[in-house]
This record gives sequence, C-alpha cells and structure tokens, in this order.
Amino acid sequence: MGALEVGLPERVPADGLPERVTIWEVGPRDGLQNESSVVPVEIKLEFLDRLAGAGLSTLEATSFVHPKWVPQLADAEQLLAGLDRRPGVRYPVLVPNERGLNRALDAGVSHIAIFASATETFARKNLNSSLDEQFAMFEPVVTRARAEGLEVRGYLSMCFGDPWEGVVPAEQVVRAGQRLLDFGCSQLSLGDTIGVATTGQVSRLIETFGKAGVDVSALAVHFHDTYGQALANTEAALRAGVSTVDSSAGGLGGCPYAESATGNLATEDLVWLLEGLGVAHGVDLRALVETSGWMARQLGRPSPSRVVNALGG
Amino acid sequence: MGALEVGLPERVPADGLPERVTIWEVGPRDGLQNESSVVPVEIKLEFLDRLAGAGLSTLEATSFVHPKWVPQLADAEQLLAGLDRRPGVRYPVLVPNERGLNRALDAGVSHIAIFASATETFARKNLNSSLDEQFAMFEPVVTRARAEGLEVRGYLSMCFGDPWEGVVPAEQVVRAGQRLLDFGCSQLSLGDTIGVATTGQVSRLIETFGKAGVDVSALAVHFHDTYGQALANTEAALRAGVSTVDSSAGGLGGCPYAESATGNLATEDLVWLLEGLGVAHGVDLRALVETSGWMARQLGRPSPSRVVNALGG
Repeated sequence: MGALEVGLPERVPADGLPERVTIWEVGPRDGLQNESSVVPVEIKLEFLDRLAGAGLSTLEATSFVHPKWVPQLADAEQLLAGLDRRPGVRYPVLVPNERGLNRALDAGVSHIAIFASATETFARKNLNSSLDEQFAMFEPVVTRARAEGLEVRGYLSMCFGDPWEGVVPAEQVVRAGQRLLDFGCSQLSLGDTIGVATTGQVSRLIETFGKAGVDVSALAVHFHDTYGQALANTEAALRAGVSTVDSSAGGLGGCPYAESATGNLATEDLVWLLEGLGVAHGVDLRALVETSGWMARQLGRPSPSRVVNALGG
Repeated sequence: MGALEVGLPERVPADGLPERVTIWEVGPRDGLQNESSVVPVEIKLEFLDRLAGAGLSTLEATSFVHPKWVPQLADAEQLLAGLDRRPGVRYPVLVPNERGLNRALDAGVSHIAIFASATETFARKNLNSSLDEQFAMFEPVVTRARAEGLEVRGYLSMCFGDPWEGVVPAEQVVRAGQRLLDFGCSQLSLGDTIGVATTGQVSRLIETFGKAGVDVSALAVHFHDTYGQALANTEAALRAGVSTVDSSAGGLGGCPYAESATGNLATEDLVWLLEGLGVAHGVDLRALVETSGWMARQLGRPSPSRVVNALGG
C-alpha cells in the first residue's frame, strides 16, 4: 500500500526490459529553446542545479546554435561559465557546426551533440544542404571533437515521418545513422520530430538497426507527444533493447493546447512508467515534480506533464 | 508515403495483438457528465449522430443516475426519445439501481451498464454501502435486466489504485469482477479510475483474471490519463488479449473524485495507435476529429486530445 501514499505507482517488474534506463534530460536545451519566453541565465542555472539534485545524470545544458536562430539560448557561454558541475553528472551541449564547436571548446565542454536529418527535405529546410552535404559538414566537426577528446552524440531527426516526404523508410534511417556512427558518434538519438510514430514502427526501426550490425546499446530514442504516442513508443523501444531515453522535465517545449503542440515526452511521465515497471532510473520524482512546477511558474503557464499536474508540482 | 498525407500513421502490424478492437465510446456519458457545462439535448443528439457517422459502433449514450447527482445528464429520457438509432450501433446507458432500471426499460433501452467498486472505501464513498451491500444492491438489478432481455455491462472502478486504500491487489479485483459476471454481466470494464496504473500492473491483472478462469474476451479496459499512462496501458491490455477499449471522443470528461480531473483516454489517440498497429477499428479518424473539434467549441474549451489538436479538429 505504500507506493501510492508517497506518490509513486506500484512496482510490477516485467520481463524483456532493461534493468536500468539513462534519462537524457533535454529540458534545458530542447525544452527552453522552444518556449516563447526567454528565461534569465540565473533561472536556467538554478533549473540545472535542481535537475541534478533530483537525480538526473545527463543534462543537455544549452546550444551553440547562432543566437539569431535561437535567441532563447544566446547566453550559452555565460551559462556554462556559471555552471556548478556536479560530480557524476554530464552536461552535453548542442553544436551545429565548426564555429559552434570552437565556442564549445572555449567553454570547456566535454560532451557535444550534433543535429542531423534522416531525410533530404528536412536537411534542406533545416540546414539548407542536401543529405550528402549535411554529412560532409558534420564529418570534420565530429572528427575534430573526437580528436579533442570530446564525446559526441548524433541526433537524427525525422526518423519515422517527415512533413514533406511522408513515411520515412527504416532502411534510409539506418543508412543515415550508420554514417554518423562511422564518423565517431558514440550514440544516436532517433527522433520522431513530428510525433507521428506508433509502436510497431518503433520496434521495426530498432530491429532494422540491429540487423544492420548496429549495437542497440548505442541507440537512444527521442519522442514527441504530438499524437499522444510518446510514452507507448518509449516502452516499445525499451522492449527492443534501447536503454537511453530523451525527455524533458515538465514536458517543456510544448504548449498543452497549442495547435502545433510538438512537446517532448515529459520526464515525470516517463519516470512513472519506469518506476512502475521496476526499471532503475535514479530520479527522485517528488523533487523533479517540484522543479518542473517551479519552472512552469517562471514561464507563467501550466506544465503539459500529466504527472506534474496530478502531483501538484 | 500515402498514410501521413491523409492524416494517418504508417501501418506496421505487430504480433500478439487482436485483429479487431471494439471501441466503447464513453464521451456522451462519462465525458459529458464530468464537464462543467451542461450541453443542450439537441447538441448531444447531434454529437451521438456524428459519432455513429464516424464509424463508432458502441455509444454509451447517457445515464439514469438521479439528476441531483449528475445534472449534466438530467435529460436522459428526452435524449433517448429523440435518438435516431442507426442500424448496427449499440446505445447502452448507465443504470445505478432499480429505479434507474425502471426508467431505462420505460425508455426502451436494450443494453445497460452498472457501476461497481472494487474497493470497500470507494463503495462507501460512491454508493454509501459496503462492498457486500453493493453487490446485494446490484444483483436484483442485473437479474431483472437479464430477464427483460437486456445485455448488461459491469463497470468495476479502482481496479489498480484507490485514493484511500492505495494499491489494489489483483486478486481482490478478480473476486469483485467474478461476482458481477456471476450475476449475469456479459462484460466487465476494468477502470483505472485515478489513472495510476502502469503497464506491468495491467498485464498482471488481465493474467490474474485468466488464471481464475475468466474468459479474457469478456474484459474491457477503461483508462484515465491522469499520469499520462492511458495509451501505454491500453496497448498492454491488448497484448494480454483484451479487445474492447473504452475511450472518450476528444478526451471529454474526467473523474470528479480524482484530485486533478484529467480525462479519459481520447478516442482519437487510441485510433492513431490501432491504425498504426494494423488493428481494425472501423473509425474514420478525420470525421471523428471534426466531431470532437466541434464539441470542444460547444464547450468553449480546447480538446485535451493530442490528435485532435495536431490534426486541427
């Protein structure tokens, strides 16, 4: 009877799941860059510190994308200079190109992420380059980052559907992913950027990577809840052997009722699932819910996370 | 590439799922009874007609609970008198007691549902009776309904967690469910009334019913999205052999007893999952989204369904 009294689900371990999941917390970067308000740097620093305090061990802290494109994260240098790094916590940052890498190196970053597309059209829309040009642009960035001793994650977007191209074939995604791994990325984050994936598609994509010889432990998943499928898709990925899941504290980055609600999976909703399945996650849910409730008040709007609302964050 | 262009996910059939799912649409009853606005009867009639037109074959139309408790459905007689019943569509109504059954029989209803609790405390709070008194009250209602040729569904609430008792043991739920089946209910709808269940708990409860000799085809599931788990839990139930799922068009309604009234699983989000998994459902998603968008405008607030918002209902 204890579980519900302390705001946690009953633990009913299930077969076929990883023992432990690493939550890759994207709220400070992917979440805040998609919020209309620009959050002051001292609030961001408190946010990062509270997230680490709640037990999250990987915090994607900010981005070196040009401030013209993402004014919300224009304070990247200031943020990293002020960051009180906790032992055992990683603070990766997003780097779009060589200039971004220089800024990251100057800021003493040890873990970066690059953001590539699995489709031709999105490469053109997002990077103004073809798919091949995109890889040609990233190759020297990853090579140099690795030579400098940095770890590199490769985001791959539009892995399930693309607004211009429709359904994206699994084989195409695997080919794009393999190029990023070949360059030296140690992890691939497979993004359902427009949130259209369903669980069968997720299982099939992970299996296709496995059949192509990719170690499934190098894969992470990044789901958006645009069609309400993010958590079901996450469980499908866990069943297929994935053990790194991207999510955003409080579901930051998506307005609950916006027509183009593209919000990330909320970390709290993910933790509820993992806790219930007996999968280790390391998070103190109460502390996380309080942090997300506090951030929602900073932003002046309710959190889209169901758990945050249910537990009164 | 066609799927996304017409607002549907790619079909990737998965093993271990039912070929077809019956969606038990609860929006007109469970949804509207939990909305603060009282909807005029002619709007309800148009809602029912549009839902049937969108392909939903089971529409829980209204309730004969005393209008003092549920003023939103005080027009039950008027609604049933005005209902243009479509061939092949069932219109069950909720009946709380013998007086409600009399009203249902007078109104020419052929399918009813009763609403029982799996826990002692909720039986006391909701029906002001003990668990045993509750069954003693329902037994003659079901017996008489069956004698009159009516089909009877039994709702069982608090099947996973109870706000006062905490975690609810699966064996307790099975015992309560078996009593309802023994009275003559042809179907049991297992409700996660406060939305706390996770997928492992769902699989275990269905298995426990099976081990107790209950035919899993007599089970339905009824999830609330309070903790964001409704759709993942639904898929777990399908994998365990359940093929009837309760949901509410546009995510209408919620539980008045839960601390935060987040609603039923949205029918549209369920249809997206089923369509993606290649499970037959019979629903025209575009027509349903338009219907829910229209109803949200009648209620003067946005739909909580992700799919309704994504497709611009």
